[in-house]
Amino acid sequence: MRPSSEQLGKTVRAQKGFVSALFDELREGSKDTEGVTRDTFGPGEQFGYRVIETCAREMGLEQSWDHGANLYMTLPGRDRSAPRVMFGSHLDSVRHGGNFDGAAGVIAGLVAQRTLQELGISPARDITTMAIRAEESVWFQVSYIGSRTAFGRLPDGALDAKRVDTGRTLAEHMAECGADIEAVRANRAHLNANDIHTFIEIHIEQAPQLIEADLPLAIGTGVPGNFRYPEIHICGEYAHVGLPRRFRRDAALAGSDLVLGLDQIWQREDAAGRPMAFTVGRFFTNPDEHALTIVPGEMTLSLDVRAYDTDHLAKLEQEFLEVCRAIEASRGVSIDLGQRASANVAPSDPRLVDGLTEAAGRLGISTMPLASPASHDAATFTAAGVPTAMLFVRNENGSHNPHEAMEIDDFLETAAVMTEWLVHEVAND
Amino acid sequence: MRPSSEQLGKTVRAQKGFVSALFDELREGSKDTEGVTRDTFGPGEQFGYRVIETCAREMGLEQSWDHGANLYMTLPGRDRSAPRVMFGSHLDSVRHGGNFDGAAGVIAGLVAQRTLQELGISPARDITTMAIRAEESVWFQVSYIGSRTAFGRLPDGALDAKRVDTGRTLAEHMAECGADIEAVRANRAHLNANDIHTFIEIHIEQAPQLIEADLPLAIGTGVPGNFRYPEIHICGEYAHVGLPRRFRRDAALAGSDLVLGLDQIWQREDAAGRPMAFTVGRFFTNPDEHALTIVPGEMTLSLDVRAYDTDHLAKLEQEFLEVCRAIEASRGVSIDLGQRASANVAPSDPRLVDGLTEAAGRLGISTMPLASPASHDAATFTAAGVPTAMLFVRNENGSHNPHEAMEIDDFLETAAVMTEWLVHEVAND
Repeated sequence: MRPSSEQLGKTVRAQKGFVSALFDELREGSKDTEGVTRDTFGPGEQFGYRVIETCAREMGLEQSWDHGANLYMTLPGRDRSAPRVMFGSHLDSVRHGGNFDGAAGVIAGLVAQRTLQELGISPARDITTMAIRAEESVWFQVSYIGSRTAFGRLPDGALDAKRVDTGRTLAEHMAECGADIEAVRANRAHLNANDIHTFIEIHIEQAPQLIEADLPLAIGTGVPGNFRYPEIHICGEYAHVGLPRRFRRDAALAGSDLVLGLDQIWQREDAAGRPMAFTVGRFFTNPDEHALTIVPGEMTLSLDVRAYDTDHLAKLEQEFLEVCRAIEASRGVSIDLGQRASANVAPSDPRLVDGLTEAAGRLGISTMPLASPASHDAATFTAAGVPTAMLFVRNENGSHNPHEAMEIDDFLETAAVMTEWLVHEVAND
Repeated sequence: MRPSSEQLGKTVRAQKGFVSALFDELREGSKDTEGVTRDTFGPGEQFGYRVIETCAREMGLEQSWDHGANLYMTLPGRDRSAPRVMFGSHLDSVRHGGNFDGAAGVIAGLVAQRTLQELGISPARDITTMAIRAEESVWFQVSYIGSRTAFGRLPDGALDAKRVDTGRTLAEHMAECGADIEAVRANRAHLNANDIHTFIEIHIEQAPQLIEADLPLAIGTGVPGNFRYPEIHICGEYAHVGLPRRFRRDAALAGSDLVLGLDQIWQREDAAGRPMAFTVGRFFTNPDEHALTIVPGEMTLSLDVRAYDTDHLAKLEQEFLEVCRAIEASRGVSIDLGQRASANVAPSDPRLVDGLTEAAGRLGISTMPLASPASHDAATFTAAGVPTAMLFVRNENGSHNPHEAMEIDDFLETAAVMTEWLVHEVAND
């Protein structure tokens, strides 16, 4: 018998003690001088797996590992061969990051499974929580390592990428954590879209938009696509501080034109309600040559531009290239864009978004759609053809820093929406 | 008997072989992988002194050294106690610099003295060419070391400044080159403004304004004053690439606003005919923290602003501070200006400028007044109260680089103007 939405909400909220204890245990074991550090394929991430694995064992879930050392924790369904429902997120973190980024999505899956257990519901199909490896690209400068390994889609050369701090390869780090490197190298697929009914990832919001909106959670509209130029080089001319303005070919001024040109585009797109983001994270004159009294002849910068629509992204890139050409002409510099990378837009599944919205409605929880410009493993599932959605939990101070501030109550509201959707739509079908 | 201007011009121009050989010898001995390097108080500068000293000896000039290892080469006058006329410039260069920057002013002094000798003129007062030490501030990050030592005006702490490449102190480097460090430390004055009738510095132009104007030389209106903030720190907030625009406190955007704000001011001042220059030579996000997918929370930059009028400079600094305040408000950042340094405006002596202009007229050489925004030892003489002027020689490719391109013919025209002034105004008085 299906429980009422009220009864389900109550059962989820009653898990506050379980959830708080789990987050505390994770934090305690991965505390750094500031915040937490759960390093990708290293001691921090390994610790996270031990905590989650122990919890799953105590819950009596089936456990298995794939060749990439991702962990699957399954509540068996009545039909073991039916496509399963999957929840999950990653267990690693950036250095001096927060405790909730990633881990919240794994714990939310366990909460949903525990709720079914407590309500005595035997699901029609398998319900699996996946604890994903290596989502944070800061360590190996490769994104979605864990989820792409599971789908046999790790890009060529990734195994040779070196971790920025240890200098050792991804292959070495993975092997130490129990991965089967030959299978990874052969791009074996452990997951297949045909065997997956749905994937839902809960994640803390990485901006305070829900604080602003005064809502506990939002339903993601999709993971943005992006184009990236990790190392753009502007070449002007070093010159004496005595050179008048009209003769200068100042690379720092050209670089400034570039970022402010992009900022104007963003401002215009924001005003028009077309969500996007650009980030120039690295922006520097050459430390071997620059000086107080020398006009800078070189500037290096990185660029990441993201948006939710393929055509929009193409239009933005076109405009960016036009900005570059205009600056070359006006500042007398040349702009070498260097290597280009890109990722496809990964829109949420519309039916799934509707289902989650209705589930929230039945629970009396207000939500909003949210275009959150961050990258998430959900994008790998979408790319593989799995109906996918994300739920974002209100969080005051952003992520990737020690000050992230998610309330456990908001987390439980979000887990309740996911669980209500699960029970209503698929657990009992 | 005073020679005609025509005869004098001819005598100066006839020294082309002497001048070319001297420049060639200097270049040959200080050649680097690119351009020349005559390192301040190091082997490169020492080599320059050996060449110039040998030449002065061959010319029969009196030689003496001061406590700061500056060299004085004197053609004695009839009245040895009368204030003397001084010519000169520096012998050091930047790394991979050009052969003419500095050295031209020393060789021009020798040319003037040689002309008097050839014309059989016994001057009324001493005529001294000074080969000045350590003008290039890139080595010790201290400006005008040689000329300020001569006047007993080296700033506190300068002797402890470390050379950027060797890491050894100015005191150590000076002692190796024969300086009397105790006298330098005591700020002994070797030169006194009352004993100096005039100081004239010939220097290559550091921009192609004379190429543009199609003139061989210009008469400097003065050495600009400046204000400097060597290390401005902009503090925003590091944030996840997923943070929407309205929540960001992006230090790179704030830095870009700052340099483009200054560029707009310069553009406006240029249009209004008010000469100035600003240079942001160092401009960088923090290399320990910046990354492709992190909104930059810090930016560091250096600023040098120069102009020819004290009030103008004060107005520009006021405007700069207003730009900073506006950026703090609009970008949500804080701007820490760090230490401030400044140098006074050093205008050329009007009577001397008139005299040089008339001398050029008598020789039939066209000139123009020029506000060249570089720093020169002439400023030390002006600050000490000596009537001072500068002459700039046409030079195609700027200075502080291996491609500077001064024609010896233009140099001789400039030396002729200086010598004509000398003979007309003071040598025979």
